[in-house]
Amino acid sequence: MDKALDQLFDFIREIDKEKFIGRQTYLTDGERKENDAEHAWHMAIMVLLLSGYSNEKIDVLRTISMLLIHDIVEIDAGDTYAYDEEAKKTQKEREEKAAERIFGLLPEEQGNYLMELWKEFEARETPEAKFARTMDNLQPMMLNAATDGKAWVEHEVSIDQIMKRNARTGEGASVLWEYAQRNWLEPNLKKGRIKPQKDL
Amino acid sequence: MDKALDQLFDFIREIDKEKFIGRQTYLTDGERKENDAEHAWHMAIMVLLLSGYSNEKIDVLRTISMLLIHDIVEIDAGDTYAYDEEAKKTQKEREEKAAERIFGLLPEEQGNYLMELWKEFEARETPEAKFARTMDNLQPMMLNAATDGKAWVEHEVSIDQIMKRNARTGEGASVLWEYAQRNWLEPNLKKGRIKPQKDL
Repeated sequence: MDKALDQLFDFIREIDKEKFIGRQTYLTDGERKENDAEHAWHMAIMVLLLSGYSNEKIDVLRTISMLLIHDIVEIDAGDTYAYDEEAKKTQKEREEKAAERIFGLLPEEQGNYLMELWKEFEARETPEAKFARTMDNLQPMMLNAATDGKAWVEHEVSIDQIMKRNARTGEGASVLWEYAQRNWLEPNLKKGRIKPQKDL
Repeated sequence: MDKALDQLFDFIREIDKEKFIGRQTYLTDGERKENDAEHAWHMAIMVLLLSGYSNEKIDVLRTISMLLIHDIVEIDAGDTYAYDEEAKKTQKEREEKAAERIFGLLPEEQGNYLMELWKEFEARETPEAKFARTMDNLQPMMLNAATDGKAWVEHEVSIDQIMKRNARTGEGASVLWEYAQRNWLEPNLKKGRIKPQKDL
């Protein structure tokens, strides 16, 4: 019995490293940037509260589970910023290798389960994966709006970049995506914190 | 419709502050201390992986939900260290007031639901609450062991303090509590990182 528990706790200790994976989003204090573990926790609570706005009926536990584990691959692969086109070219390969190693620490049953959840999130086909992806896009957008667009300004992000990035955000929850455009994007575009288009 | 969403997102933005509530536990790097949001994320994944070790059958979603939200009250009430006997005297009152304010930001339905979850965790009567409390005790113990007992040494914690604190940890999952004693407490007691008893 201890062998399975040793493997489980090896994994549980290993994922502590997710707390050191930095993201580009500023927290509401506008000073410190968020890490992957904090981001996942925040989105899990968002699912608890917002699942009723999903376009399709979703299994809440499955959706939360997906969000809790989906960034674990970044322990090896690092965070790939949404608007870093170079890094995005190698992202898939780096993340698949990471998933093999890290989920491979677990006993087979649990390892297969987390791998399946991660692949479901990546494939974005089920209602749960679509809603999870909507959360993954809206949570940093909400924080960017809450910090007067600080990350958008720093990275000189334009509205066409944001709209391209969010071409499928409405698939999970169209009501939430419309709310986000009305309350977070439009006011910041008007105030010039989001650029009208990318400089050539 | 926007009124409910405004309230939901007011709450979701407010709880961002949980990422600034520091705990006494060192992360596995032995340098930085954990915050409440990271702690909750870590335990939620532990439930996903370890629910099969629960003494009684548990509803996994309910248990995870409880752990995700149980420290939100610390945004107002602060973190009360497990071995700070003075602070523990006023903890209940401070946390109840915090729960009223923070869960009160939500629309009534969701506010009542989170309040109910929080009270269930505090009351420690249901199988879900017992298992959640076991996670809440074992997660920092695992990190303390992983950092050569750094937090135990700094606070000069003794084995009788730990055993008193964990008098009910086995109620949620006796197998896990026994595993923790064998693998995390006993070796650190032998090495002197946990004191044999509190100095008088």
